[in-house]
Amino acid sequence: MLNFEFYSPTEFVFGKDREDECGTYAKKYGAQRVLIHYGSGSAVRSGLLDRVKKSLSDSGIYFTELGGVKPNPRDTLVYEGIELCRKESIDFILAVGGGSVIDSSKAIAIGVPYDGDFWDFYSGKPIEKALPIGVVLTIAAAGSEGSGNSVITKEDGMLKRGTGSDLLRSKFSILDPALTQTLPAYQTACGATDIMAHVFERYFTNTKEVEITDRLCEAVLLTMVKETPRVIADPNNYDARANIMWAGMVAHNNIVGVGRQQDWNSHGLEHELSGLYDVAHGAGLAVMMPAWMEFVYKHDVMRFCQMAARVFGCNMNFADPEVTAREGIKRFREFLHSIGMPINFAELGAKEEDIPTLVEKLGVGDGRRAGFVELSAADCTEIYKIAAKASL
Amino acid sequence: MLNFEFYSPTEFVFGKDREDECGTYAKKYGAQRVLIHYGSGSAVRSGLLDRVKKSLSDSGIYFTELGGVKPNPRDTLVYEGIELCRKESIDFILAVGGGSVIDSSKAIAIGVPYDGDFWDFYSGKPIEKALPIGVVLTIAAAGSEGSGNSVITKEDGMLKRGTGSDLLRSKFSILDPALTQTLPAYQTACGATDIMAHVFERYFTNTKEVEITDRLCEAVLLTMVKETPRVIADPNNYDARANIMWAGMVAHNNIVGVGRQQDWNSHGLEHELSGLYDVAHGAGLAVMMPAWMEFVYKHDVMRFCQMAARVFGCNMNFADPEVTAREGIKRFREFLHSIGMPINFAELGAKEEDIPTLVEKLGVGDGRRAGFVELSAADCTEIYKIAAKASL
Repeated sequence: MLNFEFYSPTEFVFGKDREDECGTYAKKYGAQRVLIHYGSGSAVRSGLLDRVKKSLSDSGIYFTELGGVKPNPRDTLVYEGIELCRKESIDFILAVGGGSVIDSSKAIAIGVPYDGDFWDFYSGKPIEKALPIGVVLTIAAAGSEGSGNSVITKEDGMLKRGTGSDLLRSKFSILDPALTQTLPAYQTACGATDIMAHVFERYFTNTKEVEITDRLCEAVLLTMVKETPRVIADPNNYDARANIMWAGMVAHNNIVGVGRQQDWNSHGLEHELSGLYDVAHGAGLAVMMPAWMEFVYKHDVMRFCQMAARVFGCNMNFADPEVTAREGIKRFREFLHSIGMPINFAELGAKEEDIPTLVEKLGVGDGRRAGFVELSAADCTEIYKIAAKASL
Repeated sequence: MLNFEFYSPTEFVFGKDREDECGTYAKKYGAQRVLIHYGSGSAVRSGLLDRVKKSLSDSGIYFTELGGVKPNPRDTLVYEGIELCRKESIDFILAVGGGSVIDSSKAIAIGVPYDGDFWDFYSGKPIEKALPIGVVLTIAAAGSEGSGNSVITKEDGMLKRGTGSDLLRSKFSILDPALTQTLPAYQTACGATDIMAHVFERYFTNTKEVEITDRLCEAVLLTMVKETPRVIADPNNYDARANIMWAGMVAHNNIVGVGRQQDWNSHGLEHELSGLYDVAHGAGLAVMMPAWMEFVYKHDVMRFCQMAARVFGCNMNFADPEVTAREGIKRFREFLHSIGMPINFAELGAKEEDIPTLVEKLGVGDGRRAGFVELSAADCTEIYKIAAKASL
C-alpha cells in the first residue's frame, strides 16, 4: 500500500425531503448571499427550485440564480456566473443539480476570487482560494458532491479539462434519492455507468497488497450490479435509488481508492468522445471502458479474474485464467447493454473515421499516458478501434 | 434505508514515518500550546514520543505532556489532564497512542472549557464545546481516530460509559502502520476483534434494503479475515498491518453504518466485563460477540446465512438455512480462537458466578435494551451464560 492523505470534510445530509433543510445548512456554513446554480428546466418544473428558494428565504438568506448548465458544462456559462457573483457580492454557491451543475459551480467558485482567467486552473495552475459551495443533488452519477474535482468544456475547440483541490469539496451535500425518481431510464443508466467507472479507474492498479480498497471497490460494484436493473425496471424504487445514490458518493470521494495507483485512462479516452460529439459521459464510458479492458487485461490476468469472480460471479477457469478474465469483461459489457447503454461507436453516435481526430485531441504525441498500462498514441488508436467495432 | 447524516471531517495522514509531520499538521489546525497525551512507557521507549516532540518543536509549538493512560481509561487521569490544560493554557490536545489514549484526550478536550464535572457528558449531557484534538495512532483497534465517540471508566464502581459528538472528531489523524509492528500478538488480535465487532454491531440490523452498507461491512470483515492471521504469523508484515489499520478507521467512522438501525449490545455486554475484570476490550468482545449471535440468530436466519456465506465462505444449506447460520457463527469463533483470542469466561478470566453482578451493572431493570433483538435482563443473563460455557 502506498502512503496517502484522505480528507472528505463534506457534511452529507441524506434522505427524503432533506432539500427543505438547505437554508439551515447554508446558514450553518456562513452563507449570506447565495447564487443558486442549476441546469435545465426540470429543477424548475418539478418545483424543486421553489422549495430551495423557500428554504433559503426561511433562513433569511439573500439569493440570486443562474440556470442553463448543460451536460459537459461550458466555460462560457462559468464566465457569466463569475461576473454575476461579483456584481451581486455572492459569498456562497448552491449547486442544485447533477455533476455538470456542481462542476460548473466549482469553476465559478474558484473564478470569483481570482483576477485572471479561471481556465488557468483547468490548465494546471494550483487552486489557492475558492468560494464555499453547497449541493442539492438530483442525479447519482458524477460523485462531484463528495469529490474535490471539476471538469469543464472549453466551447472553443470543445476541449474538456479537469482540475482538483480539497478547496472544491462541498461544505454540505443534500442527497434525496426521491429527487432521482423522475430521471429518464437512459440518464439513470448513464449515471450508474459513471459510478462503476469511478470504481474501475481505481480498481485496476499495479499497487500490490491493497485488500481493503479492493474489497471496498467490489462492495460498490456489487451494489451497482444488484440495484441498477431494479431502478431501470421500476424508476420509483426508492430504496434501490438510495443504495445507488450513496454508492455514487462512496465511489468518488476516494475512500475506495486511497493508497493505490489509479488509472483514469477510460475517462481520458471518453472525454474526447463527449467533447467531440457532446454525448453523455456515462454513455461514452459504457463504450470505452470494456474496450480499454480488452486492450489491457493481459497485463494482469489475475486481477481481471478477481473482478470476474468477485463482481460478476464467474467461475474461475483454473486451466486457462484468460478465459475467466475475458468472461468478466464480457459480463460487464452485457450488463451495460442490459441497462440500455450503447456498446459501440454506432450505438453512441460516434464515427470510426474520427479516430485520428480523437487521438490527436488526446495530445499523447510521442509520449505515453500514465496508468495501469502506459498508453502510446498507437495504443489509444487501437482502443478506440476496439470500441468502434464492439459487439455482444 | 433510513435518512441519515454523515460527517467525517478528519484529515487522515497515512503511511510510513508520517508521525514526523505531526507538528506541521498541528500548526495547520491552529495549535500553539499542545498537551501530548499518551499511555504506557512504550511510546517513550520506542522513541516515538521524542520524534513527536521534535516535530512540534520544529514547527515552533509549545508542548507539555501527560502520560499514564491505562486500557479502559479512567476518569481520574482525565481530571488531572483538565487541570493541567487549564494551568498551561493548552489550546490543542495531541493523542499519541491507541483508543484509550484518544478517548482520554477527548474527555479532557470537553472537560477543559466546561465549568462542571466532565462526567456529566458521559451521563447524557450533550456536548457543546471541546478543544481541538489530533492523533498519532499506535494500534489499529478502536477506530477512535475517525469517530466522534469516547468511552471512559469511572474508577469509583468501575462504571464504563460513553459519549459522542462531531465536536470530538479529530482534526487530523496520523496512521503509520509501522508503529503497530512492535505490538504483542495478543494486543494485535484484540484490536482486530474490536474492528470486526464495530462492523458486526452495524451489520446486524432490522433495516431492509441496505445493500451498499451491507457490502461495505463485508468488505471490512473479509479484509480482517484475510489480513489478521498474516500479522499474527509475521508481526512485521507492513502491508497486512496497513490494510488492517485503514480497515479499523473505515469500520468505525460510520461510513459502513449509515442509514440503518445498529445494535451495540455486544459492546454493552462487554463493557461490564472489562469494567469488572479490567480485561482487554477486544478479548471481552471475542467472548461476548459469538454468544450474542447464538442467542439472536433465529430472529433473522437469512441475515446470518448472508454473513456465513459472504464473509466466511460457507456453502448455503438450502434445505436447512439454520445450519448455515450456525456454521457462520462457529467459523467466526474458530477464527477468533485461531488468532489467540479467548472464547469463554474461563479463558478470559471471568467468573460465571458474577453474572448476576454483570447484569445488575447493565442496569436493564424491567426494561429492554434496544437493538437487533431487544434484550431483557433475563436475555442478558442467558447470553452471559452462553459466553461462560462456550467451546469450539
